[in-house]
Amino acid sequence: MEEKSDLNSLLCRPIGIIHTPFKELENMPIQPSGAAGIPGTVELFPEFADGLKDLDGFSHLILLYHFHESCGYRLTVTPFLDSRPRGLFATRAPKRPNPIGLSTVRLIRIRGCSLDIENVDILDGTPLLDIKPYVPEFDHQEDCRIGWLEQVRGMVKVKKSDDRFRREE
Amino acid sequence: MEEKSDLNSLLCRPIGIIHTPFKELENMPIQPSGAAGIPGTVELFPEFADGLKDLDGFSHLILLYHFHESCGYRLTVTPFLDSRPRGLFATRAPKRPNPIGLSTVRLIRIRGCSLDIENVDILDGTPLLDIKPYVPEFDHQEDCRIGWLEQVRGMVKVKKSDDRFRREE
Repeated sequence: MEEKSDLNSLLCRPIGIIHTPFKELENMPIQPSGAAGIPGTVELFPEFADGLKDLDGFSHLILLYHFHESCGYRLTVTPFLDSRPRGLFATRAPKRPNPIGLSTVRLIRIRGCSLDIENVDILDGTPLLDIKPYVPEFDHQEDCRIGWLEQVRGMVKVKKSDDRFRREE
Repeated sequence: MEEKSDLNSLLCRPIGIIHTPFKELENMPIQPSGAAGIPGTVELFPEFADGLKDLDGFSHLILLYHFHESCGYRLTVTPFLDSRPRGLFATRAPKRPNPIGLSTVRLIRIRGCSLDIENVDILDGTPLLDIKPYVPEFDHQEDCRIGWLEQVRGMVKVKKSDDRFRREE
């Protein structure tokens, strides 16, 4: 048992960089559903290229990435979609104990180590941590309750970010 | 700009531990859809308790966790559901450059820092990295193609894991 991974930490290193039209944290779509059609590119580092085999059969990808412009966190936050503070884990806010972002995007094509994607709500230059295929049988849930978001359903598509999650805060 | 986060790494620390009936890597369900009704408990560390506010309004949670029994990776792997090697990023295999797991589970109830969950395909003792609310408007995709998985659709519910992703491999 002495050989087990360190349970106390996981050191993640980027496997690529995500390029998008969003150069600033302000005025971005706040989720992929508000970013319909917005294009981006994942540049996977060449040493991981062999891992892309078979990925072109999938229409959607789950990207995990480092919210690299976020720093620190608070356990209650006022989300973009609300005026009341909410528990951090009931939000998708970027300032988290482990600042890992998750977005499901559409895969358009793969050219070498470049993945053209759409529906991108991610800051330009974001370090990519993982690519997983989106599989409805694994990832889609029926009969969902969405708590405080129920009241603001529909606003996601139009609401843009502001600077409340700036690193400097 | 000197104050930016280190773009070259992200050190993740557990925010809790996931308890499940699965004590061994063998013979586990390989996705939540094969784990319908299987109960588990998330024990969030008490210092994060305030972040759970408002979470009880959500029926489903996305858990990010450390595949702590995985070590190393190969860029092509033979998945549980297939007999042919596939590109790693076209699979959900646990041995990844950044071994972060993702499962969407049903939230049953919250008792203090304990979250009773269902549809659990996770190894007992797994370090939790993040909890995000599952929101269909963010996370659900229509008209999906699922590549090599198309041929094995339906097997996910019955297929169990074996020992191919043991740490010692």
